Amino acid sequence: MTGPAASRHYLDHASTSPPRPEVVAAVGHWMASGPAADPGRLHHEGRLARQALEDARAAVAELVGARPRQVVLTSGGTEAVNAAVWGAWRARPDGACVLADVEHSSVREAAARLGPVAPLAVDGRGRIEPASLDEVLDRLAADGRTAGLVHCQLANHEVGTVQPVTAVAERCRARRVLLHVDACMATGHVPVALDDLGCDLLSVSAHKFGGPPGAGALVLRRGLRTEPLLVGGEQERGRRAGLEDLPAAIGFGAAAAALAGPALGEEAARLRRHTARLEAAACAVPGVSVLGDRTGALPQLLCLVVDGVEAEPVLLGLDQAGVAVHSGSSCSSESLEPSPVLAAMGADAERSLRVSVGWSTTDEDVEAFAAAFPAVVSRLRALRP
Amino acid sequence: MTGPAASRHYLDHASTSPPRPEVVAAVGHWMASGPAADPGRLHHEGRLARQALEDARAAVAELVGARPRQVVLTSGGTEAVNAAVWGAWRARPDGACVLADVEHSSVREAAARLGPVAPLAVDGRGRIEPASLDEVLDRLAADGRTAGLVHCQLANHEVGTVQPVTAVAERCRARRVLLHVDACMATGHVPVALDDLGCDLLSVSAHKFGGPPGAGALVLRRGLRTEPLLVGGEQERGRRAGLEDLPAAIGFGAAAAALAGPALGEEAARLRRHTARLEAAACAVPGVSVLGDRTGALPQLLCLVVDGVEAEPVLLGLDQAGVAVHSGSSCSSESLEPSPVLAAMGADAERSLRVSVGWSTTDEDVEAFAAAFPAVVSRLRALRP
Repeated sequence: MTGPAASRHYLDHASTSPPRPEVVAAVGHWMASGPAADPGRLHHEGRLARQALEDARAAVAELVGARPRQVVLTSGGTEAVNAAVWGAWRARPDGACVLADVEHSSVREAAARLGPVAPLAVDGRGRIEPASLDEVLDRLAADGRTAGLVHCQLANHEVGTVQPVTAVAERCRARRVLLHVDACMATGHVPVALDDLGCDLLSVSAHKFGGPPGAGALVLRRGLRTEPLLVGGEQERGRRAGLEDLPAAIGFGAAAAALAGPALGEEAARLRRHTARLEAAACAVPGVSVLGDRTGALPQLLCLVVDGVEAEPVLLGLDQAGVAVHSGSSCSSESLEPSPVLAAMGADAERSLRVSVGWSTTDEDVEAFAAAFPAVVSRLRALRP
Repeated sequence: MTGPAASRHYLDHASTSPPRPEVVAAVGHWMASGPAADPGRLHHEGRLARQALEDARAAVAELVGARPRQVVLTSGGTEAVNAAVWGAWRARPDGACVLADVEHSSVREAAARLGPVAPLAVDGRGRIEPASLDEVLDRLAADGRTAGLVHCQLANHEVGTVQPVTAVAERCRARRVLLHVDACMATGHVPVALDDLGCDLLSVSAHKFGGPPGAGALVLRRGLRTEPLLVGGEQERGRRAGLEDLPAAIGFGAAAAALAGPALGEEAARLRRHTARLEAAACAVPGVSVLGDRTGALPQLLCLVVDGVEAEPVLLGLDQAGVAVHSGSSCSSESLEPSPVLAAMGADAERSLRVSVGWSTTDEDVEAFAAAFPAVVSRLRALRP
């Protein structure tokens, strides 16, 4: 593997954030000294493992404003989303999934393969229009069809726009339709409270805020029971089969605990300061703009559009300068298709860059971007025919 | 949490085995120093993560006699099994699943919820009878139905019986039916070679042989393509969506690498010596017998039936004496139902104990069982009305 050896500045936390020190310590301690037992077993080691698992679950529950028994631990956000879609589809196989193009590919693809999909409208900043839900549900009813599940992300993963979840939730409750909120990008960065949101299912991911990869949760409204996606064992109260991943759970719990009390808000303020500086530095370059609704947006990310150059060479130029960012172009995003999120906003996915910060970001990282970005863009623009 | 504080003897490796030192070191190193990036990204950190992921995949592939690109990493054996069943069902939704009652609950439950199931016969030692497959397939054909997928575990997880997979595979090939082999309990303990087995899909788990929990693989015959269970991203060549779990993969790879070359056979011989000693000690107690086909059985586990006492008090008595084993009784096994594996063999699940060893088992652990078991059984028998 060849590549830059000098100091690096990682500004791609929205793809994945390195594990926090608390997470490294907790997982390392578990790996080295256990108890490495099945939490479903009756022996001493099994009971210790159960205790560790439930402590972790309690910390995760606290982070999302739920009770521990509402939390079904999964292998990540993608599994949680797939499980939410599966459970709703099994409960109502003829029901349509209602969702906007700005949802994450896991929501879109999990929904599209199981049944009909009805689209929600978004505005030019990628914000879901709650009133369009009424129109969609009315149209379905007029056709003699029903909705099985409505999706509304808590905040968008590409541009950071926070969605009007409570307005969507009110409509879902009034029409008795299940609502799933994909909170994978938002959790750990903005306060999340299941009951306040008023949703039935909530998907969460750990690695986006400094937890370990391989950890996520599907959080269920009290009393809601859906068919599991993974079957073959009674783990997670019969809601997710497979031996519990204790290191992942313990790491997830440690990351959640690190954000308890005022810590989340304090960290978010720090990240917001970083993104404000990144935005100012980027927008000082002519022909650079920011996508999405910046009002109340997620604190940790910024989607830039650079006129006249494609994003991938900008990404590679920044990488050469020691700065890691993500481009919205097809070859490096979650899916091979061009971003429908940006398409829905009328933006050019080939020209968009996502710059994102996290718990470990320093002023030096931000300044490294500010120093490198104008030169990279100028050089690329000078190369144009 | 209260419990025994004195020295412990963990003989429940078949439920889960503690991570090997190589695994602890590799995962700890990754957690502490990364690269904690998305392996799908183009930047330096992403390319390093990709390299680490592919190195791990190569080690796993080597362990199961496959090429790296045949290996789809999953969150564990249960996900791999569920994905195998899902992929076959989507390819042939009207096809029956053919399987014996001795399969793991993940195989049985994943199959049963999607479509019709046709049973394979087993003998009194829990061994699948290959000839019964012909009868089942003939009967399906006579009814104008087809088989979508045949399951044949590599070895049984409760009694250790090794199954006649190649004989089953020959029949599947001749009749052009897909074969899935659940190798979760066998991998790392007996040689596994996908092509020699002649199966189409193979499920593997890491934590049963000292890899981390949360790691498994679905290994595909060359050229086989099935619909993924988890969708929404192009990870794993579009065969399993969701950010790759690098610590799990790295730990899985380290466990597999620890068994390369002669190491697997050497460790298996050591485990076989331990189980032989356990068997001798247990069977020296009157009214204790061993279930399953011991000829060529898995080296690491032993299923005991104790006449006249239930397994759970034996388990708890051993636990008090510092020895952790697993009982086949309902409340502590994977599923809440009584073990159909033992029922299929005419054995009493309430009276069966599974004792299992692993990489870290010492002679002292084995002798602790040998010392405690007769006294625990005697005491419980003396309590009988």
